[in-house]
Amino acid sequence: MNSFGTHFRVSIFGESHGPQLGVVLDGVPAGLPLCEEDFLEDIARRAPGAPGTTPRKESDLPHLLSGVYEGHTTGAPLTIVFDNANTRSGDYSQFAAQPRPGHADYTANAKFDGFQDPRGGGHFSGRLTIGIVAAGVVAKKIAAAARFSARVISIGGCTEPERWPELLAAVQQEGDSLGGIVECRVEGLRPGLGEPFWDSVEALVSHAVFSIPGVRGIEFGDGFAASAMKGSEHNDTFTAEGPAKNGAGGVNGGITNGAPLVFRVAFKPTSTIRKEQLTYNFTSGRQESLCAKGRHDACFCLRCPVIVEAMAAIVTADLLLR
Amino acid sequence: MNSFGTHFRVSIFGESHGPQLGVVLDGVPAGLPLCEEDFLEDIARRAPGAPGTTPRKESDLPHLLSGVYEGHTTGAPLTIVFDNANTRSGDYSQFAAQPRPGHADYTANAKFDGFQDPRGGGHFSGRLTIGIVAAGVVAKKIAAAARFSARVISIGGCTEPERWPELLAAVQQEGDSLGGIVECRVEGLRPGLGEPFWDSVEALVSHAVFSIPGVRGIEFGDGFAASAMKGSEHNDTFTAEGPAKNGAGGVNGGITNGAPLVFRVAFKPTSTIRKEQLTYNFTSGRQESLCAKGRHDACFCLRCPVIVEAMAAIVTADLLLR
Amino acid sequence: MNSFGTHFRVSIFGESHGPQLGVVLDGVPAGLPLCEEDFLEDIARRAPGAPGTTPRKESDLPHLLSGVYEGHTTGAPLTIVFDNANTRSGDYSQFAAQPRPGHADYTANAKFDGFQDPRGGGHFSGRLTIGIVAAGVVAKKIAAAARFSARVISIGGCTEPERWPELLAAVQQEGDSLGGIVECRVEGLRPGLGEPFWDSVEALVSHAVFSIPGVRGIEFGDGFAASAMKGSEHNDTFTAEGPAKNGAGGVNGGITNGAPLVFRVAFKPTSTIRKEQLTYNFTSGRQESLCAKGRHDACFCLRCPVIVEAMAAIVTADLLLR
Amino acid sequence: MNSFGTHFRVSIFGESHGPQLGVVLDGVPAGLPLCEEDFLEDIARRAPGAPGTTPRKESDLPHLLSGVYEGHTTGAPLTIVFDNANTRSGDYSQFAAQPRPGHADYTANAKFDGFQDPRGGGHFSGRLTIGIVAAGVVAKKIAAAARFSARVISIGGCTEPERWPELLAAVQQEGDSLGGIVECRVEGLRPGLGEPFWDSVEALVSHAVFSIPGVRGIEFGDGFAASAMKGSEHNDTFTAEGPAKNGAGGVNGGITNGAPLVFRVAFKPTSTIRKEQLTYNFTSGRQESLCAKGRHDACFCLRCPVIVEAMAAIVTADLLLR
Repeated sequence: MNSFGTHFRVSIFGESHGPQLGVVLDGVPAGLPLCEEDFLEDIARRAPGAPGTTPRKESDLPHLLSGVYEGHTTGAPLTIVFDNANTRSGDYSQFAAQPRPGHADYTANAKFDGFQDPRGGGHFSGRLTIGIVAAGVVAKKIAAAARFSARVISIGGCTEPERWPELLAAVQQEGDSLGGIVECRVEGLRPGLGEPFWDSVEALVSHAVFSIPGVRGIEFGDGFAASAMKGSEHNDTFTAEGPAKNGAGGVNGGITNGAPLVFRVAFKPTSTIRKEQLTYNFTSGRQESLCAKGRHDACFCLRCPVIVEAMAAIVTADLLLR
Repeated sequence: MNSFGTHFRVSIFGESHGPQLGVVLDGVPAGLPLCEEDFLEDIARRAPGAPGTTPRKESDLPHLLSGVYEGHTTGAPLTIVFDNANTRSGDYSQFAAQPRPGHADYTANAKFDGFQDPRGGGHFSGRLTIGIVAAGVVAKKIAAAARFSARVISIGGCTEPERWPELLAAVQQEGDSLGGIVECRVEGLRPGLGEPFWDSVEALVSHAVFSIPGVRGIEFGDGFAASAMKGSEHNDTFTAEGPAKNGAGGVNGGITNGAPLVFRVAFKPTSTIRKEQLTYNFTSGRQESLCAKGRHDACFCLRCPVIVEAMAAIVTADLLLR
Repeated sequence: MNSFGTHFRVSIFGESHGPQLGVVLDGVPAGLPLCEEDFLEDIARRAPGAPGTTPRKESDLPHLLSGVYEGHTTGAPLTIVFDNANTRSGDYSQFAAQPRPGHADYTANAKFDGFQDPRGGGHFSGRLTIGIVAAGVVAKKIAAAARFSARVISIGGCTEPERWPELLAAVQQEGDSLGGIVECRVEGLRPGLGEPFWDSVEALVSHAVFSIPGVRGIEFGDGFAASAMKGSEHNDTFTAEGPAKNGAGGVNGGITNGAPLVFRVAFKPTSTIRKEQLTYNFTSGRQESLCAKGRHDACFCLRCPVIVEAMAAIVTADLLLR
Repeated sequence: MNSFGTHFRVSIFGESHGPQLGVVLDGVPAGLPLCEEDFLEDIARRAPGAPGTTPRKESDLPHLLSGVYEGHTTGAPLTIVFDNANTRSGDYSQFAAQPRPGHADYTANAKFDGFQDPRGGGHFSGRLTIGIVAAGVVAKKIAAAARFSARVISIGGCTEPERWPELLAAVQQEGDSLGGIVECRVEGLRPGLGEPFWDSVEALVSHAVFSIPGVRGIEFGDGFAASAMKGSEHNDTFTAEGPAKNGAGGVNGGITNGAPLVFRVAFKPTSTIRKEQLTYNFTSGRQESLCAKGRHDACFCLRCPVIVEAMAAIVTADLLLR
């Protein structure tokens, strides 16, 4: 099922090269001011064009099909769609026989018996995250007291931003790609959000974040480093202002403690690379060379902070509406 | 809400020191052979008693209240309860005023306005994971073609098991605790399980795993290390036998590819430690010394492999029943 | 799946002749005063013993397994179980081969491949409604501003209560049974509850009510009679006090209008009768005479008002917690 | 929340006079042949134009936005939208102050604090049922072994179709309206569909049907008449061919028994009538005369059989995919 959330529910639909894609949002309270301009800033943050991102350009103007009347949300389902204009479907035809390493070509075929839309990755495309960004804009309005900020903290293992341009230039020249890490901070959450079992804040955030294509891991607060700590090191003692060092990342027992929610997301390198790869061809029955064409990000992680923020906002809105 | 799963649904209830706790399982197919003995092996793996675990002992015999008739599941909801016998509730009274660092005392109070059951952590207690283990036993029967195996791969940052006894002895003497990492492998999953959006395999597994108290992070396949790789390094080329090196951990585009599902879970060190901690007392309005009493694991991660396995099995059963 | 509700969720489990049966309630707010005595009045209203009802007697004391601490709800899942003491399972053995007309013997077998618990109707038994009544008691506490009242308005087509004793005596002597109609009224609902689509008040109430065994129909306000009216007759004109005659039964467009919610539920006659019936025997392959033994209500509808009230309260609590 | 179904899920969105309205369908299996022509027959059955229906005309061509590729479903979410072309929004402005009797004007305002889209009934409009009809077309393809047939069996209390034209002509002349009853039959359902509790076939069908605007009641098999029967009259004895007379309407214990599913739905008369009604004006604070303008069905029930069929198909598809 392609919906997420119990009180603020996001249903996503569309394909990379279909006529339109978008989201339906349920549970949006009536009376929020909302117009198409509200979406432009976050959409621009996701847009390609910067060094290390794909040259595919979309105008990406949101169309509000339902749920908005005279500049305010009505309380009815809110539908936002985007046109797919700048598509070049011919690039993708060969991947049915010879699935791209690291991509969903093989598993999509296994799941949908060959009926999936292969153009541009179809329903599996990162293109669908534009709907997530749009949902995030509405979610941020619902969670107006919270402040969401995500940024890339590492590329290809390098945490010094001044070195990233050269790293990106090098892999682009090689026809290769790089992964990265995004850190997200949410401030202004009141204590008491989340559930002790199943719907802990971490469970909901990780569920949402692992829907972003290419995520390999997530950690909260001290994260994996906590596994190497002693209790006396990792424990946050309380002060009058709250947790002393926020090693728990804002959550105890699955429930917000009033400190900032902090988590990091590991993104793999872009799967589709120009560099030659030897991989299995199901038609010929042997490994063959593959040089993927098409337009792709050398480091799609660069476009992901606003998507991670959107996921955090979607979860926060859902928790606040409970 | 305290349920998880859409086709195999686990509802959990109970408190650490209440009369009974357990689970209700919905969606169990009729006709599976099931008796109380089937639970004993996994329950024993979770039991304390080994070095580094709490001396609290429970007989932990499952009672099958419903859904089983003449040694087979009936297809109706299956209810499994356990008695709480060996409780010493007096140990927990002080934590209302002075919440334990790292524990849910503070957030539970914020969420439930002081009405939560504080005895032994109440509904937040790791004790509830016995219901998860029981659910896992049933889930493994549903997912009979899959093999689940989890083990501790690191304690306190040390990956050499022969050194763990001395590490544990040392922190126990200090009244401190250690974290650790559990790795889980699931073999025998057919390609095609999972959904492209929202209900990817990773999303469902992480949602379930973050319901285990004390989890700080999760990663699949190459995990966080993938963020430092190039595409040509991380990508799995296909061979006739499947993915060459399984850097994706068995999942592409959210969907199983037939290779083993591999993931790692970071556990924090046990929060409750005997060692003195300075923390805020909400009654006195100042930081005060706290030496937690009660019986606790020096490294509760040691008891968690079977719980992580259970969560993997719960998700797998849910996916297989779709 | 055996759960109902999104914000106040009732999960039901158990069989007529198993060791225990009950409910798990999710979403109960913390801090409601609740003890076992609170259940006795409604449980007594469901109890058999009156003319026209089964002589089976149960002590029917609720056991609160979780979610209550020191006389108040904790906010964690609330589990209520009842013992099954007075069972005579031998009565039911023949119905596997020769299913009782009107009963679930045949369909349970089709669904669960013969693995269902046949004793006393197993999970299909009206016995399970005791859990519903218990859930209703908690729901009424959540919906404290509303008043729920249901009563039998017709038995065997007769709407004159003073004639019911003779009707009941007559069918009992014949070894036959009677149906009836229950009317339920809910006062004190504020305007604005319910959703325009899918989760209209009528949709939710009817969903819940059709889970009571033996329901054949439901209607709101003018109900089926509205289909024979003109708009000018059926329409409620508004006055300063609200709808003039409440032909809509308290709901317009799926949403409460502040007038009392009024609905009627049609119950079939008890299926199991002593009177001889000719019906198919799947073992012998021919129609054969069947005289059902066991203890049964001549008119189980007499015990249903409190169950219908409970369902109305469950839906109301769910709507109020949204 | 504006979704229905667990395995075949219908999410509905849009307003009567917004740019577009439609549905998103989740859980559609991959590989079903589907094109826009497949929708035309059922859409034409819902279309106005016959005696007793509104003169508003829409071209009502479905646009398939996602989930279909090269004439087959892909397994991804399937989105179908319709344009709203022939709108005259000016007709509706007065109903904010003086809500139409029987209509959702008052309750929509109570729920959405005045932010609802009032044009043509907004999200509450019967116009939205075109999305239901479209969902029904897909559902019927999923439930290909079943045959769905619904028809009007009564108008204004009259069950003789040859008299309906004169009845309709009369109320139209008076500026009044009529209700009616639709009977639906589903043949070809295998035994064993449905759940004993909460998700009985009747519960799911009634939940869906009460989402159609203007429904006042539903009954299965003998329905309300069963409440006036003896057990020996209502009980279906089994024959070698199945239930003898199908008084249960194809369902025992909530589960299909292989006989046709039969149910009847009571529709109220159209609320909006030209005839003068005295009703409360919230601006003036007194009852005032109201003569509704706009284009409306004298008996909208005439357009509803295909909608009822669609709801039956939606539920059947959901049950079959479990």
